Amino acid sequence: MTDTAAPPTLDDVARLARVSTATVSRCINSPDRVAASTRARVETAIKTLGYTPNFAARFMAAKRTFTIGAIIPTMENAIFARGLQAFQEELHQRGYTLLVSSSAYKAEAEEEQIRTLVARGADGLLLIGHDRDPQIYDYLAQQHVPVLVAWSYSETARVPSIGFDNRAAMRSLAERMIALGHKRIAMISGISEQNDRARLRIEGVKDAMAAHGLDPERLAPVELPYDVHSGAAAFVDLMSHSPRPSLVLCGNDVLAVGALRGAHQLGLKVPEDVSITGFDDIELAQVVTPELTTVHVPHREMGRKAAQELVGMVEEKRQGVSEKLETTIMERSSVSILRDQSE
Amino acid sequence: MTDTAAPPTLDDVARLARVSTATVSRCINSPDRVAASTRARVETAIKTLGYTPNFAARFMAAKRTFTIGAIIPTMENAIFARGLQAFQEELHQRGYTLLVSSSAYKAEAEEEQIRTLVARGADGLLLIGHDRDPQIYDYLAQQHVPVLVAWSYSETARVPSIGFDNRAAMRSLAERMIALGHKRIAMISGISEQNDRARLRIEGVKDAMAAHGLDPERLAPVELPYDVHSGAAAFVDLMSHSPRPSLVLCGNDVLAVGALRGAHQLGLKVPEDVSITGFDDIELAQVVTPELTTVHVPHREMGRKAAQELVGMVEEKRQGVSEKLETTIMERSSVSILRDQSE
Repeated sequence: MTDTAAPPTLDDVARLARVSTATVSRCINSPDRVAASTRARVETAIKTLGYTPNFAARFMAAKRTFTIGAIIPTMENAIFARGLQAFQEELHQRGYTLLVSSSAYKAEAEEEQIRTLVARGADGLLLIGHDRDPQIYDYLAQQHVPVLVAWSYSETARVPSIGFDNRAAMRSLAERMIALGHKRIAMISGISEQNDRARLRIEGVKDAMAAHGLDPERLAPVELPYDVHSGAAAFVDLMSHSPRPSLVLCGNDVLAVGALRGAHQLGLKVPEDVSITGFDDIELAQVVTPELTTVHVPHREMGRKAAQELVGMVEEKRQGVSEKLETTIMERSSVSILRDQSE
Repeated sequence: MTDTAAPPTLDDVARLARVSTATVSRCINSPDRVAASTRARVETAIKTLGYTPNFAARFMAAKRTFTIGAIIPTMENAIFARGLQAFQEELHQRGYTLLVSSSAYKAEAEEEQIRTLVARGADGLLLIGHDRDPQIYDYLAQQHVPVLVAWSYSETARVPSIGFDNRAAMRSLAERMIALGHKRIAMISGISEQNDRARLRIEGVKDAMAAHGLDPERLAPVELPYDVHSGAAAFVDLMSHSPRPSLVLCGNDVLAVGALRGAHQLGLKVPEDVSITGFDDIELAQVVTPELTTVHVPHREMGRKAAQELVGMVEEKRQGVSEKLETTIMERSSVSILRDQSE
């Protein structure tokens, strides 16, 4: 589109200054918000090319803040950390700054944080999962703030999502465990109310049980906050039941690490005495002994793609396109084989 | 101050509605930003008491956004998670919403995020550690945005801090290790440039060595990003040195968990073959095998007090008061005793 004869464009300035076009526009619109060293580089490029800021008029009319908001359920245990880090890196490359809020898994707190981020001028929002009061989506539509969901994928939801199929992923893991001979299955889940990830993972286990002649009603998942202490306590309790489960499926890696601690407290060996699995494949899964068999979620890919899609929605004023990402089962050392795997 | 005969105050409304006074003022100033259920409760209280919004005029003049910004170096590994969670809970009780940004330990990113949070109207900022370009403090002073530092304590710094003495804390740990008989001491540190916590922890180890007749110049700390992978690689490298260290002090728990993994890779037993310590006492320190000897940082107390102080600075337009919090050594299972402890 540009050649040396044509007047220099914003793109030319950005290329010469080695910054994004968004950063160039920020230098012009709100220089106060750009680091001095970056501003100097952009100013040099503008002078070198003889770029006239008048060309930027259309860009300025966009009135963007170059701020994206994300609300995650928790900052603890790094469940969302890696995906969010990739989300932020990709946003940064496109000239956007990320502001994050953590709702502590509370719907009321999330609603307040959504309103705050909108009031503070966020150009777009990333939310985790689809389960929330429909009025929130009404509000965001009224405010013309694009919203994208991650960590969950739904074809039918009102807003687009870059995520994965929590139900199918957990079903795959449970089926693999059943194929290894596990029939006495227990589950320690996150709290499923207003948490589609937790709810769908329970459904996934039930799907697998039903498909293999086990009664899904016997699963009776325990629902607890996603923390190590809860996982340990729930595990100790489960082990007092008779007959004892041979396998405890956990709703995420944090609960599974708690279950490992519970086993340690009881003097039970994992996986010899009982098998334990997680979900997420965060770093925690590999620092514990034994390393956890879990479901690997492509956190970095999800974060990166979510940023690309959300910025596209903001800049091109278009509907977002959902994408389902693949998960994989990571078989490590926390599960025992109870019988010949051929069936 | 109030009795039944006097006209109802904002405090009375807040008490009856079971919300903070800040929430009542938000219901009056920007009802759009308050959850519907909360608004309904406040409206009922206003009607019940016959409170007239005119009384709120002075409150409205404050022009606050009830938004506090925090910039942390990383969201990974939950290093800052617990303290930040307590910070947020305390802010929430006082009617403030927290927006967080993560700089990935990059000074340029932090500067941009500070400018963004100020541009988005943050009433006050929490920053981690004191090391940064003095121009940033000039900028924040010009903008009249109160700033408080946490995770570090300094009597001489330009802005107040609610933190701990990183140098003295690490010195105590190192002295305890020397008392246990460790003389061949190595250190895996975070990157100390523009990170006073990392820098002061190195100094603390050197202080302890010098005080006990060991040459501090022989420490030669390795500086690496705070991640498990870096810690493991650095540990493997250190173990190839001759003579091999009997103790590897790590700049934080994440590096120490990496060192444990490195030991596992080399087939070395901890603490029989080599001792390893961390710093922070995040949850990670207790989920690994063996559990880490580390420095306990009062994360929740720090977060809570930082919120109280920062809100005080915002609401009372006063200078902040610094406070030094105590750390404690947590002796667990990752350190061996090399000789009789009496000296």
